[in-house]
Amino acid sequence: MFRHQKELQFEVKVERPDALLARQVQELLGGQFGEMSVMMQYLFQGFNCRGEEKYKDMLMDIGTEEIGHVEMLCNLISQLLDGISPAEQIEAAKDPMIAAILGGTNPQHLIVSGLGATPRDSNGVPWNSGYIVASGNLLADFRSNLHAESQGRLQVSRVYEMTTDESVRAVFRKMLARDRYHQYQWMAAISELEEKHGIVAPASFPPEAELEAQPHAYEFWNLSEGTQSSDGRWAKGAAQDGSGEFVYLEDPKALGQIPNPNLPHFSTHNDINE
Amino acid sequence: MFRHQKELQFEVKVERPDALLARQVQELLGGQFGEMSVMMQYLFQGFNCRGEEKYKDMLMDIGTEEIGHVEMLCNLISQLLDGISPAEQIEAAKDPMIAAILGGTNPQHLIVSGLGATPRDSNGVPWNSGYIVASGNLLADFRSNLHAESQGRLQVSRVYEMTTDESVRAVFRKMLARDRYHQYQWMAAISELEEKHGIVAPASFPPEAELEAQPHAYEFWNLSEGTQSSDGRWAKGAAQDGSGEFVYLEDPKALGQIPNPNLPHFSTHNDINE
Amino acid sequence: MFRHQKELQFEVKVERPDALLARQVQELLGGQFGEMSVMMQYLFQGFNCRGEEKYKDMLMDIGTEEIGHVEMLCNLISQLLDGISPAEQIEAAKDPMIAAILGGTNPQHLIVSGLGATPRDSNGVPWNSGYIVASGNLLADFRSNLHAESQGRLQVSRVYEMTTDESVRAVFRKMLARDRYHQYQWMAAISELEEKHGIVAPASFPPEAELEAQPHAYEFWNLSEGTQSSDGRWAKGAAQDGSGEFVYLEDPKALGQIPNPNLPHFSTHNDINE
Amino acid sequence: MFRHQKELQFEVKVERPDALLARQVQELLGGQFGEMSVMMQYLFQGFNCRGEEKYKDMLMDIGTEEIGHVEMLCNLISQLLDGISPAEQIEAAKDPMIAAILGGTNPQHLIVSGLGATPRDSNGVPWNSGYIVASGNLLADFRSNLHAESQGRLQVSRVYEMTTDESVRAVFRKMLARDRYHQYQWMAAISELEEKHGIVAPASFPPEAELEAQPHAYEFWNLSEGTQSSDGRWAKGAAQDGSGEFVYLEDPKALGQIPNPNLPHFSTHNDINE
Amino acid sequence: MFRHQKELQFEVKVERPDALLARQVQELLGGQFGEMSVMMQYLFQGFNCRGEEKYKDMLMDIGTEEIGHVEMLCNLISQLLDGISPAEQIEAAKDPMIAAILGGTNPQHLIVSGLGATPRDSNGVPWNSGYIVASGNLLADFRSNLHAESQGRLQVSRVYEMTTDESVRAVFRKMLARDRYHQYQWMAAISELEEKHGIVAPASFPPEAELEAQPHAYEFWNLSEGTQSSDGRWAKGAAQDGSGEFVYLEDPKALGQIPNPNLPHFSTHNDINE
Amino acid sequence: MFRHQKELQFEVKVERPDALLARQVQELLGGQFGEMSVMMQYLFQGFNCRGEEKYKDMLMDIGTEEIGHVEMLCNLISQLLDGISPAEQIEAAKDPMIAAILGGTNPQHLIVSGLGATPRDSNGVPWNSGYIVASGNLLADFRSNLHAESQGRLQVSRVYEMTTDESVRAVFRKMLARDRYHQYQWMAAISELEEKHGIVAPASFPPEAELEAQPHAYEFWNLSEGTQSSDGRWAKGAAQDGSGEFVYLEDPKALGQIPNPNLPHFSTHNDINE
Repeated sequence: MFRHQKELQFEVKVERPDALLARQVQELLGGQFGEMSVMMQYLFQGFNCRGEEKYKDMLMDIGTEEIGHVEMLCNLISQLLDGISPAEQIEAAKDPMIAAILGGTNPQHLIVSGLGATPRDSNGVPWNSGYIVASGNLLADFRSNLHAESQGRLQVSRVYEMTTDESVRAVFRKMLARDRYHQYQWMAAISELEEKHGIVAPASFPPEAELEAQPHAYEFWNLSEGTQSSDGRWAKGAAQDGSGEFVYLEDPKALGQIPNPNLPHFSTHNDINE
Repeated sequence: MFRHQKELQFEVKVERPDALLARQVQELLGGQFGEMSVMMQYLFQGFNCRGEEKYKDMLMDIGTEEIGHVEMLCNLISQLLDGISPAEQIEAAKDPMIAAILGGTNPQHLIVSGLGATPRDSNGVPWNSGYIVASGNLLADFRSNLHAESQGRLQVSRVYEMTTDESVRAVFRKMLARDRYHQYQWMAAISELEEKHGIVAPASFPPEAELEAQPHAYEFWNLSEGTQSSDGRWAKGAAQDGSGEFVYLEDPKALGQIPNPNLPHFSTHNDINE
Repeated sequence: MFRHQKELQFEVKVERPDALLARQVQELLGGQFGEMSVMMQYLFQGFNCRGEEKYKDMLMDIGTEEIGHVEMLCNLISQLLDGISPAEQIEAAKDPMIAAILGGTNPQHLIVSGLGATPRDSNGVPWNSGYIVASGNLLADFRSNLHAESQGRLQVSRVYEMTTDESVRAVFRKMLARDRYHQYQWMAAISELEEKHGIVAPASFPPEAELEAQPHAYEFWNLSEGTQSSDGRWAKGAAQDGSGEFVYLEDPKALGQIPNPNLPHFSTHNDINE
Repeated sequence: MFRHQKELQFEVKVERPDALLARQVQELLGGQFGEMSVMMQYLFQGFNCRGEEKYKDMLMDIGTEEIGHVEMLCNLISQLLDGISPAEQIEAAKDPMIAAILGGTNPQHLIVSGLGATPRDSNGVPWNSGYIVASGNLLADFRSNLHAESQGRLQVSRVYEMTTDESVRAVFRKMLARDRYHQYQWMAAISELEEKHGIVAPASFPPEAELEAQPHAYEFWNLSEGTQSSDGRWAKGAAQDGSGEFVYLEDPKALGQIPNPNLPHFSTHNDINE
Repeated sequence: MFRHQKELQFEVKVERPDALLARQVQELLGGQFGEMSVMMQYLFQGFNCRGEEKYKDMLMDIGTEEIGHVEMLCNLISQLLDGISPAEQIEAAKDPMIAAILGGTNPQHLIVSGLGATPRDSNGVPWNSGYIVASGNLLADFRSNLHAESQGRLQVSRVYEMTTDESVRAVFRKMLARDRYHQYQWMAAISELEEKHGIVAPASFPPEAELEAQPHAYEFWNLSEGTQSSDGRWAKGAAQDGSGEFVYLEDPKALGQIPNPNLPHFSTHNDINE
Repeated sequence: MFRHQKELQFEVKVERPDALLARQVQELLGGQFGEMSVMMQYLFQGFNCRGEEKYKDMLMDIGTEEIGHVEMLCNLISQLLDGISPAEQIEAAKDPMIAAILGGTNPQHLIVSGLGATPRDSNGVPWNSGYIVASGNLLADFRSNLHAESQGRLQVSRVYEMTTDESVRAVFRKMLARDRYHQYQWMAAISELEEKHGIVAPASFPPEAELEAQPHAYEFWNLSEGTQSSDGRWAKGAAQDGSGEFVYLEDPKALGQIPNPNLPHFSTHNDINE
C-alpha cells in the first residue's frame, strides 16, 4: 500500500512560463524513456518479484521514488504553462511573431489538458506499456534498468542545454544527479548477480544442451563489407567468462537450406495451388 | 545497399506442424524483444552512426545478420503452420478435443496471413517502433543492445522448454548461441567505451554544472518501509568511478515545496477561477 | 441500413483559410473526445443494444447525427486548408515569418491527405477504438456518454476562444448547443435508469454477496497527508442510496499480508531459484 | 512524494492456481477500465489540479489508493500463475485435454513475464494513456471518474461470476465494495460542483455567445426511423436547469449547404485540377 | 447528413451460438481490412473529395453502405454470443472439455462488451485509423480501395470455410457478392482515371523534372541471388504506357557514396566528438 | 541471409541543413506509406511466399532494395539535421524569428535521436506493422503493393514541391523514378495473375456457392441522395469478366430484418433483464 505526502521530493521552480519548453519536457515525462516508464517498470518488477527480498525492497524503493518524479515533472510543466490561455492565442494571432512561436507549442496543452501535463511524449504520442519490461529474470531486467537510466539522463542533459531558465536547470540538475546514482545502483546490482550466476542471461539454460551450436557462441559474422569491425575486443581473445575464444568470420557462409514451403490447401484461397 | 542470398543462415526444420507453437514463436519474431526489434534497432543505430567507423561497421554487421534471423523465424512459423487449413477447422469442430486445441491458436494465421508469419507478437499485437532506440550516444545504446539480447535469449530459452520438437529445438540452440555471443559482443563494446569516457552516460555533461546537486548522486532513498535494500553494494562504499561515497538514507525527507499552481485564465473554461 | 443526404446538418463556413486552426480542429474530429469517438461509441452501443427498444432507438438517432458531425468537421478542415499548397511552402520559405507560422501546421495535411481532414488528433495520432466503450450495461455506458459530451463541449469551447473567425465560431456555436442538449439527454436517461435500478452500477450484483466487505463500501481512505479531503459530502452523512453511513478513515491501516510468492520452476529461467 | 508500506491494502489469496483466470484478471489490471487506468487518471488529475485544495487532496487520496490496487492485482495474478512452468507445458502436451485448456492461457505469462502480471489487458494489448483524461475541468473529469468506477465495478462483477475460487471472490468483494464507495464519492463531488456552477460542462461558456444557436440546445433529432425515442424525459418537458423546453423533431431537416470545396493547387498532385 | 432505417441491408441469422466463431468474425469487423476500415476509408475519401462530383457521390454511396455492413456484423456477433454467460463459464469449468473450448474464445466478449461486438480484431487489438487512407488523389486511393476489397473478400472466404453454420454462410455469401461487385466498381473507376491521366500516380509530376533519373524508371534491380525474377513481363518489353523499355540489371552496382556524417556538437551529448 | 555493402544505392546530398524538411521527410521514412512500410511488406510477402518461385524471387529483390531506401532516407535526414544542437536552440531563443522557425521542427530529433532519423512519421507517431499486409494471396497483395507505390510516389512528389534544395530534389527524383518503375512492375505482375486466375480476388471461391447471392455481385446501391454516381462504367454494361450485367439501384430497399437480440443472462450484469 502507498501513502502520499504533500511536499515534492525536490523543489520545482521556473523563472518564466515557456510553452515551447513545456512541450519538450513532455518527452522526459511521457516519452519512451520518461519518468512514467521507469516508474511503471520498477513497480511492475517489484510487484512481480519472487524470492529475492532485498531486490524486491530495492525495486519498491526506487519505484516509489519515481512516482514522485512523475509528480515533479507534472508540476514543472504546469508552471511552464502558467498564464497561457486561449485568449492569449487570439492576441498572439495579431502579432505574427508570437503566433509563430506559439506554432511550436503543443495544442493539447490548451485544448485537452487545460494547462496541465499530459501522459504523452513531446509529439503528443500516448505513453504505452510496450515501453517497459518485467521479465522475472533479475539480471535481464536490471540491464534494462541501467539502460533506461542512461537514456533518461541523456535526454535530460539535452533538454538542459536547450534552456537558459536557471530555475528549470536546477530541477534538471537534481534529476541528473539521481539518474547518475541510479546508474551506479543498477551497475552494482548487476555485478552482484553476475558474480553469483555468470554473465550470460539467463544463467540456467543447460550448457550441455547448447553443445552442438557451441561454436556459434563465439563467432563474429562479418556481413557488412569492410573489416573495421574486426578492430574490437569482441573479435579476438577469450570470451569474458573464459568459456571459449572469439573468431572473426571475415567471409561467413550461409549454413541453412533454401526454403521451400509446401503449397497450401485449396480452402486457404491463396490461389497458388496448381 | 543490401543483397540477399537464397540460403538461410542456419537450417530450419520442424518434426511436425504445431499451430500452438507457431503462435508462441510469434513472440520471438514480432514481440517487444523479438528479432524484428533487434533488426530495426541495430539498423537504425548503424544508419545514424556518426564518426565511429568501427562501431558503425559492427552495427551494420549485426543488423544485417538480424534481417536473416527474421527470415529464419518466418520460415519456421510457415513450417509449423504447414497443412493447417480452414477445412481442417471444420473437421476439427466435429472432434471437440481437436477443436479445443485449435482454440489456442492464432486465428490470424488462417484469416489474415494464409499460413504465413505475421509481424506481430504471440497475442497478435502489431510490432511498433516504440520498442527500439537509437539515441546517437553509443554507450547508452549498447546498454540497450545488451539488454535486448538478454531478454531475447531468455524468451528463446523459455519457448525451448515448451516444446519437445527436436528439430525446432535445434533451431533455438543456434539462436541461443548467437544471443550468447551477442551478449559478449555488447559487453566488450561497452567496456571499451566505459574505459574511454567513464561509466556514467552521457559522459559529457559537465561535472561542475552538477555540483549543487552532487550529494544526490550518491544517496539511496529508502521509500519502501523495511531496510532490506541496505544490504547491497549500492548502499555502501565508494561509487564505482570513485567520485563519491554512497549514503543510505533510511528515513529520507522531502526537500521540495507543496505545489500551489496559479488559477487559470477564464478562457480555459476550467471553471475553477472565482 | 443508412442513407446519406447531400446537405450538411448545419452550415459550415470560414472567413479565411487558416492552417494552424485546421490542425487544432483535428482534436475535435479525431482526438480522444472528438466526433469520431462519439459517433463510434453511440453506434456500437446501439448496434449491440439488447432488449430496450427506446434506448436502442435513441442511440441510433444520436449515433446517426454524429456521423454527420464528422462530415461537418471534415468539411470545416477542408475549407480551412483551402488554397494551401506545397508551392506556397516554397514561397513561404523565402519569408521567414510565414515559414515560421507554417512551422506550426500539420505536415500531414499537405503530404498525406492533400488538403483533407485526417482521422487523427491535433498532434497527428491516429484515432483508435480504445477510446470508446459499449459494455452492454446502459447505466455504465450512459455515464460515459455524459462524460464524453462534457469533454467534447469543453474542447470546442476552448478552440472557440482560440479563433476570431466569426464563421468558424458560428459552426462551433451549433456544436456547443448540440453538446449541451446531449448532456441534458444523457442526464435524463441516467435518471430514468437510476430510478429503476438504483444508483450503483451494476445494479444486479447481489448485495448479500458483498456483505463481508460491506464496511469498505462507505470508507474514505485518507492516504495523502492532510485532511482537506474530509470537507466534502463524500466524507460524512448517509450514502446517496441510504444503504450506509460514510466514514472518514483519517489514518487507515493496511489490512492485507506482505506478499511472499513462491519460487518459480527451474524451466522458467528466472534464475532466482537456489 | 510517495512512500510504500509492505502490507497490501487487503488480503489477497487464491485457493488454487488457475492460468485461465490469470488471463481474465489482466483485463481488470491493464484493460481500458482496469486499475492502471484509474490510478493514472486520478494521479494526473491530482498533479495537475489548480486552485481547489480539497479536490486535489481527495484526488491524491484515491489516486494513491489505486496504486495499491494495481499492487494487489499483480499479486493476485502471480498467485494464480504459481507453479506454472514451461516444463509443465511439455507434460501437458502429452495429455491433449490439459494442452487444450492451456491453449486458452496467455503465452506472455510464461514467455515474457516469467509468471508475473503484465501491464496489458486480457488479450495482451498494452495499456496506453489514451484511456485516461485530466482536462483541468473538474466537473467534466469527475463525470469520467464516475463512469470509470461504473465500468470497473461491472467488469469485476463479471469476472466474479466466472470463478468459484472463494478466495479470489473474497478479493473481488473488497474491490466491488471500494468501487461502490468510489461511485458514491464521485456522485457527491459532482453534486457539489453542479450546485455551484450549473449542470452543463463547461459552465463558463458565455450563454449570450450561444444565443443564435440556442434552439438547438433543446432539440432531439430523430434520425433513425421509428419514434420509440420520443418516449423519454429527454424528449419533453423543461431542461433540467430550466433554461428551455425540449422539442422532439420527428422529421428533422438538414440546415446546411451542400459542400463544394475548391480545386487544389497543381502542386498538391491531387490530379483533379483540369 | 445521415439517416438510419431499422432493417439491416441483408438478413442476418445464425443456426446456433458459437463463441469461437464470434471471435473469428471480429477480424472481418474490426481488423485491418474489416468493415470498419472500408467504412471509414470511403467516408473520409468522400468527405474530403474535391471537384469530382460523380466520384464524391459514388464514395458517399458505398461509404454509407459500409456503415450498414458494420451494423450487420455487430448483429451477427451478438447472435453468435447469444446465451453465453459468466455462469456458463463456471459450469464449463466442471467439464474440462467445454472449458477447453471456451479457452479459445475472446474474454472481452464477456468482461468488456457484455455479449456485444467490440471494435477490435480477432485478437482483441483495437481498430485504429492508421489502417485507412484518403490522400486527395483519386487514382492512388481507388487502388487502395480495390486492394481493400480484395483482402476483405479473401478474409470472408477463409472464415466461410471455417464454419458449417449454413445461416452464417448465407450472410457471408452476401458479403462475398458485394465484395466482388466492389472490386468491379473500383476497377472501372481506376480504368476511367488511367485513361484520362495516365497509369502512373500521381500523373501531374512533370516528366521533364524526372529526366535525369529517367533510366531508373525502367530498371529491375536483381538484389536477391538467382534470376528467376527475370521471367516476367516487368523484366522485358516496353513499359505499359510506352514511355520506355524495361531493363533487367542482373548484377546492379551501387551508385551512391559511402555515408560519412559530421560529428555532432558537444551539447548533443552523443559523446563521440573528440 | 543478407549482406550489406557500404555504398548507398544512390547518392544522397543536401545543399544546406534544414530541420523543418528533416521533419517532413520522416513521413517518407516512417509514415504509413514510407519506406519502412514497403520494406517490411515486401520482405514478409517474400519470406512467406509459397510455391511461386519467380514471385518469391522478385519480392526478395525489391524487398532488399527497399532496405537500402530506408538507409538512404536515414542518411538524408542526418544530413538535413547536421549542425543542429541544443546550444543552437538557446542561441535561437534570443532571436524570436529563428526560435519561431525551430518551433516547427521535431523535438525528438534533438532529445531522442541525437540528430538521427527516427522510425516514426512526420508527427512523431511510431511506425507499426498494422500498416502492412502479407496475406498469402499474391493478387490481393500485389494490388496492395501497387497502391503503396502510388501513395509513396504521391507523397515524395509533394515533399519535392516543398523544397528548393536541388540536391535533395535530386534524391527525390531517383525515388520518384523507382516508384514509377515499381508501379509498372506491380501492374505487370497483376496482369499475369489476372490472366491466369481471373480478376476477382480470391479466384478460388467456388462460384456455385455464391449462386444465391449472385445478383448482389452486380448491383450499385445508391444510398447517398443524387444520382451522379450513375455516370460511370460501374453502373452500366457487363462486368469486366463478362460474368453479369451491372444494375444501378436508384432507390434500393433494405432486405434484412429488424434486429431483435435476446436478453442476456442475469450474470452478465447488463441490468436489462426484467
